[in-house]
Amino acid sequence: MTFNVTILGSNSAIPTIKRNPTSQLVNHLERFFLIDCAEGTQVQLRRNRLKIQRINHIFISHLHGDHFFGLIGLISSMHLLGRKKELTIYGPPLLKDILDMQLVASQTELNYPLNFHPTNPSENETIYEDEKLSISTIPLNHRIPTCGFLFKEKQGKRRLIRDEVKALNIPVEQFYEIKNGADFIKEDGTVISNNEITKDPHIIRSYAFCSDTSYFEPIIPLIKNVDLLYHETTFMQDRAKAAADKFHTTTIEAATIAKKAKVKKLIIGHFSNRYDEPKLLLDESRTVFANTQLALDGKVFEV
Amino acid sequence: MTFNVTILGSNSAIPTIKRNPTSQLVNHLERFFLIDCAEGTQVQLRRNRLKIQRINHIFISHLHGDHFFGLIGLISSMHLLGRKKELTIYGPPLLKDILDMQLVASQTELNYPLNFHPTNPSENETIYEDEKLSISTIPLNHRIPTCGFLFKEKQGKRRLIRDEVKALNIPVEQFYEIKNGADFIKEDGTVISNNEITKDPHIIRSYAFCSDTSYFEPIIPLIKNVDLLYHETTFMQDRAKAAADKFHTTTIEAATIAKKAKVKKLIIGHFSNRYDEPKLLLDESRTVFANTQLALDGKVFEV
Repeated sequence: MTFNVTILGSNSAIPTIKRNPTSQLVNHLERFFLIDCAEGTQVQLRRNRLKIQRINHIFISHLHGDHFFGLIGLISSMHLLGRKKELTIYGPPLLKDILDMQLVASQTELNYPLNFHPTNPSENETIYEDEKLSISTIPLNHRIPTCGFLFKEKQGKRRLIRDEVKALNIPVEQFYEIKNGADFIKEDGTVISNNEITKDPHIIRSYAFCSDTSYFEPIIPLIKNVDLLYHETTFMQDRAKAAADKFHTTTIEAATIAKKAKVKKLIIGHFSNRYDEPKLLLDESRTVFANTQLALDGKVFEV
Repeated sequence: MTFNVTILGSNSAIPTIKRNPTSQLVNHLERFFLIDCAEGTQVQLRRNRLKIQRINHIFISHLHGDHFFGLIGLISSMHLLGRKKELTIYGPPLLKDILDMQLVASQTELNYPLNFHPTNPSENETIYEDEKLSISTIPLNHRIPTCGFLFKEKQGKRRLIRDEVKALNIPVEQFYEIKNGADFIKEDGTVISNNEITKDPHIIRSYAFCSDTSYFEPIIPLIKNVDLLYHETTFMQDRAKAAADKFHTTTIEAATIAKKAKVKKLIIGHFSNRYDEPKLLLDESRTVFANTQLALDGKVFEV
């Protein structure tokens, strides 16, 4: 029941030798979703031995370069490596024009279908949905239109208790209805109640990605109780003024959002280049929200 | 009298953990010129401790992504790091639209003047000139319009022989004319011939960058006798057909160009991802042109 997030970049603005700008790979039941794609993301994927062709959906939060300058390179490499499977990009409408213009300039006709799903960063909308998972946008408050993404598992069905099913010799044809809550009626008419032969569905897990944004309380109801929250933390608290001016967040602010939203775990990233040692940010965030961790390049977090 | 080339990428097409795609930094008398700018170039510059703000001129050979996808990121980082000095980009006209669209999308107004000099890849034109150096385009034969770049020092002036100048007590005001070939006339009317007080100018050095192209003999007169030739060598000779189909060059072909153009040294790069071990390409190239070296990431070549 895999559901985890690999951090491919933890820096803001500028890539350095140690830290790449924003990108994350979400693995939900071995389906791979990429969030943001800074310059260097394709190499970060290789470095972490993650297969680029397994990514079928890419979500771009906004059009600042440290969140999407690596996208055209990744799209091109997928093409050069022989991809045939379709790829869907979710992002601000202008992103499509930027990608198209670069494909035209290089006279590239992609070998695979590239779908584009424009996002509306001012709305909380479901933009992806399958049987197991839904992904919706989280409107954020940044200098340009920006949204985060909420990954939420869907309520699964009840799960059969294998030993009971076997003992009662329940026919396979009835599994579907029983998983949906039906009782089992034996040949002699005895009713076996559903809760004797099934157990509760798996717990629903959820991951919220919130970058970039100023301290913005309207996100709290949307991310309430999530298992894992990534919140940008560009600055330490002594630079609260700079953070507000630049529509970014401090350690204490991110931790306050986590606390108010009652999330289970907070991971922080998008660190300003001024911090060589992100542990300082961690310590400060933990004064408000103890279960904080650093979203450093290469780390994997279970949701 | 510095004149050298640092290789920032030696791969074709796709960046890997070991090798970046094409970019090179030319240092001529501590003036820095960047040729091509694949994704990851700004990190390669940092890794090689080269200061990005010292670059004032960037030359883009063509609009395949492995030659320019890192440019918008470099331009943005220069801005974020407080650049005020102007920067000039030389490249195909469409490049300007691609850059502009991305700056508009991120609502970025650069802090520094960004000049754009459109190149015409079908002409051999001088596109940069100062007192010491000229840079001209080399039309190449690739799938899309592409040019190489020839860096050629200008003939310097004659150089004063310090001891003679001192012994004869030649006034500083006369240095300029003497460097231009004038004799020196002593107060008593004695003529001291110019070649007694000056020595020959520095030897003119030249560097030719040729990527991407098929085997293309029309470049030979343009690169004749250069001190250092970089020529793309995407494939080994057993893939000559693939090379021709893709408008690329093999080891033997690049070495043949070097030989026919009587260059002093050949460096080869733009290796296909299929070659884990570029030494195989080196050995094959040397069968035709002995003074070949591999243009591997991080290597510095004196011109």
